[in-house]
Amino acid sequence: MPINNSTSNTPSRMDSIINLCKRRGFVFASSEIYGGFNGFFDYGPLGVELKNNIKQAWWKDMVHRRDDMAGLDSTIIHHPATWKASGHVDSFTDPLVDCRESKQRFRADQLFFAPVIVANETIGYVTVLEDDTMQSRAEEQAQNLKRKLARQGELAPIVLKDLTEAPLEIIPLLPSPATGKPGSLTPPRSFNMMFQTHVGALQDDSAIAYLRPETAQGIFINFKNVIDTGRYKIPFGIAQIGKAFRNEINPRNFIFRSREFEQMEIEYFISPNADWQTLHRDWIEYVKSWFDSIGIPRAKLSEYAHPKEKLAHYSKGTTDIMFEFPFGVQELQGTAVRGDFDLSQHGKHSGKTIEYFDESDKTKYVPHVIEPSFGVDRIFLAVLTAAYGEDEIEGEKRIFLRLHPRLAPYKAAVFPLVKNKPEILARAEELHKKLKRRWNVFFDASGAIGRRYRRQDEIGTPYGITVDFDTIEKDGTVTLRDRDTLQQQRLSEAELFRFLEEKIEG
Amino acid sequence: MPINNSTSNTPSRMDSIINLCKRRGFVFASSEIYGGFNGFFDYGPLGVELKNNIKQAWWKDMVHRRDDMAGLDSTIIHHPATWKASGHVDSFTDPLVDCRESKQRFRADQLFFAPVIVANETIGYVTVLEDDTMQSRAEEQAQNLKRKLARQGELAPIVLKDLTEAPLEIIPLLPSPATGKPGSLTPPRSFNMMFQTHVGALQDDSAIAYLRPETAQGIFINFKNVIDTGRYKIPFGIAQIGKAFRNEINPRNFIFRSREFEQMEIEYFISPNADWQTLHRDWIEYVKSWFDSIGIPRAKLSEYAHPKEKLAHYSKGTTDIMFEFPFGVQELQGTAVRGDFDLSQHGKHSGKTIEYFDESDKTKYVPHVIEPSFGVDRIFLAVLTAAYGEDEIEGEKRIFLRLHPRLAPYKAAVFPLVKNKPEILARAEELHKKLKRRWNVFFDASGAIGRRYRRQDEIGTPYGITVDFDTIEKDGTVTLRDRDTLQQQRLSEAELFRFLEEKIEG
Repeated sequence: MPINNSTSNTPSRMDSIINLCKRRGFVFASSEIYGGFNGFFDYGPLGVELKNNIKQAWWKDMVHRRDDMAGLDSTIIHHPATWKASGHVDSFTDPLVDCRESKQRFRADQLFFAPVIVANETIGYVTVLEDDTMQSRAEEQAQNLKRKLARQGELAPIVLKDLTEAPLEIIPLLPSPATGKPGSLTPPRSFNMMFQTHVGALQDDSAIAYLRPETAQGIFINFKNVIDTGRYKIPFGIAQIGKAFRNEINPRNFIFRSREFEQMEIEYFISPNADWQTLHRDWIEYVKSWFDSIGIPRAKLSEYAHPKEKLAHYSKGTTDIMFEFPFGVQELQGTAVRGDFDLSQHGKHSGKTIEYFDESDKTKYVPHVIEPSFGVDRIFLAVLTAAYGEDEIEGEKRIFLRLHPRLAPYKAAVFPLVKNKPEILARAEELHKKLKRRWNVFFDASGAIGRRYRRQDEIGTPYGITVDFDTIEKDGTVTLRDRDTLQQQRLSEAELFRFLEEKIEG
Repeated sequence: MPINNSTSNTPSRMDSIINLCKRRGFVFASSEIYGGFNGFFDYGPLGVELKNNIKQAWWKDMVHRRDDMAGLDSTIIHHPATWKASGHVDSFTDPLVDCRESKQRFRADQLFFAPVIVANETIGYVTVLEDDTMQSRAEEQAQNLKRKLARQGELAPIVLKDLTEAPLEIIPLLPSPATGKPGSLTPPRSFNMMFQTHVGALQDDSAIAYLRPETAQGIFINFKNVIDTGRYKIPFGIAQIGKAFRNEINPRNFIFRSREFEQMEIEYFISPNADWQTLHRDWIEYVKSWFDSIGIPRAKLSEYAHPKEKLAHYSKGTTDIMFEFPFGVQELQGTAVRGDFDLSQHGKHSGKTIEYFDESDKTKYVPHVIEPSFGVDRIFLAVLTAAYGEDEIEGEKRIFLRLHPRLAPYKAAVFPLVKNKPEILARAEELHKKLKRRWNVFFDASGAIGRRYRRQDEIGTPYGITVDFDTIEKDGTVTLRDRDTLQQQRLSEAELFRFLEEKIEG
């Protein structure tokens, strides 16, 4: 009996998910003992399992099960020339505005302003930070200003623009959102989002290196190494999973936008003459079918094709797969068609030729790429969003996670029906031991069986296996209880292994 | 017929391994296209598989298959207070010596000096960089100096000490190894090996953060989070796998000592009253049995117990497991008994009480820890060192890797005996597809079957599966060829799956 529709996305749903993450050990704020560290999150005992399962399912479906893919694991710190060539040193920036008085910092594209015009005269400005209520808050501020200055006449409609569009001369007139008073905001400046460090014993400019802001460039700079060591034929792709770092000014929405995150990226190399539209569409469909396979429902997905005029000059198209997060519809995954920009840039900056000789038509070319890019943490959050639900069973509220068996931290839990019957306990322990050789399986002997079920439902364990009197007195079968249907069936041990294998291995 | 004893460790063996790594796509120098980046290595298509298999085998045996372990995945960048509390900000340093003339830098403990004493008079000094030949090189330098200064009399024995033991007043008299002349070396200074960065929009001291130099502290600062969210009872451990970073002055020995590396660490929490000697020994034995399970032979392992006087004040003992690398016997893994130092430090610095209430005896205490610590890259290198061999089959030289099936990048390779028989090709492709659903399995249809075997032997694929005329014309069985024994047997498809499952799943 659902009492909370699990498809509804509301801020309180977000709170419920964050709460569950903390309560059951999925996600903790990093360095919580030291008051936390903005933009960093640690994955607890259950979180690390879910995250590993997402990564392993991806690797299996993107690398092992395909015939046209190779894997890679490049370092987080590359030679700094990489980021000069890729354009990140010069342009991987956010526009930043400081309030000199409060020392607060804002992203200029998240800070909005408008002139307050009364009887055709501009009497001042209002500023608001971006959110759903900013229009009404700006209007209220405008009314207050009009009242304060005792102006008569009609207030013109408030038209908000972000601060990257503000003419330099009006910046001193804009009130700081921190103090409410004008005069303290600086003009927007470019702030590079790459974390810098120094490699070697020197601390000067010659030693500057960067933490990678994306895993993709590690693939491009290894393209020649890979084709020189294997028999790869274009079209083929290189896949990589790993941490990336961005010094976000405003990390937000829990693990959706953090400063340290994990990416799963593919560069799929194609001929410049290939039908890229079809290959692009193939990848988008493959990505969607992968989301199916880990239980992210299609109903929560949508596509967003970036408009042509917003694309970089070398880009032929980018399509994002959007997901209904509790805080709104946001990018879950993106697949870009990047031409030969990156390989050409690295060729130019390294002075080496990055060309591929195509046996099929005896031509030499710099390959073009299609780039399907995934964020592990976003998928983690999407999976939890889709899986989270509340209902009522036999008069008691239940919280559950409908995690796909491929992803569930524990694949099953083994319960001895009663604790005080040594044969049942021993049999359950023996079964648990056998199952654990192969999968991560929980064991729980304490409390009423209904409560033990519910504790597992809350962390997404798909199957409860109960060893009871029939197991030891009759035919050796156990009861398998399904988290979602609540149906129970009796299975022999061999049937149980086959059942789990089929459900879990995907 | 072995022509190269696979247990012999020589520098040329190291070259053979590095060469194989590059040639077949196990390991590349990072950023090779930009001339490389000292101390960083990328793992290629086969390397990433081997590395993932090491990590997954470890996680399975250390976390999933035990009843007393929890996993964790904390960030690489923590709150900087973590490293103040742990002592790393103040003492995670190497002694560094600069040559002001050449701008070269040396680790003081790797730079050795000795006075040259002729007829009881010190006529000058010699310096040498640490290696196996340093004593003889120093003696030669001393003879040269004696000759150059035309001194007569007996040359006293040359007694080398490292530069951390040099009195300050003699430093100006020591010749620089870069120039051969005295006067340019600086006294040793402490160089902190943590990579620094800045988090947030500020670049000042308040924003300094560090890349973790070890994964262990992420476990300590999450101890309370973990025990608050699960029903863990001491003794129990928390395990973590992840990147760590050390700004080594002299990275060396390939992936053995690099600047970016991966650790697998466990903090095993015990009562202050527990019999730590026994628990310590249990862990050392468990670690060894794990090395057995991934094919690292006991014969290449030894133990080294750190002498009491070299231990930190809080440490009760540390035992390293040493391995015969081609460049010498070096630390592969270590298990330390660290008392309650780390938890107490974080308690003190955070102002929070980190205590555990032990239900068994109703006492409250700060737990002590045993810390088994593993380096992924070192294990990778040890595995290759143990696995690498050369022999001769039917008059042809063969290079092979005797990788354990758990670790092998490809678990098997499927070969259609001939290419031009469509039924054989189709049957082989179908079998390959089925096997790939579950494992990483290669397919190769081109070249003589012997050559195809050898290509797989070289990358450690344990089993070759050949689809031949008998398969399609007779009983459907295939030939399974063993990389190590070279024995062949015919198996039905069901037998093949059972065989592989048993060998691979460990």
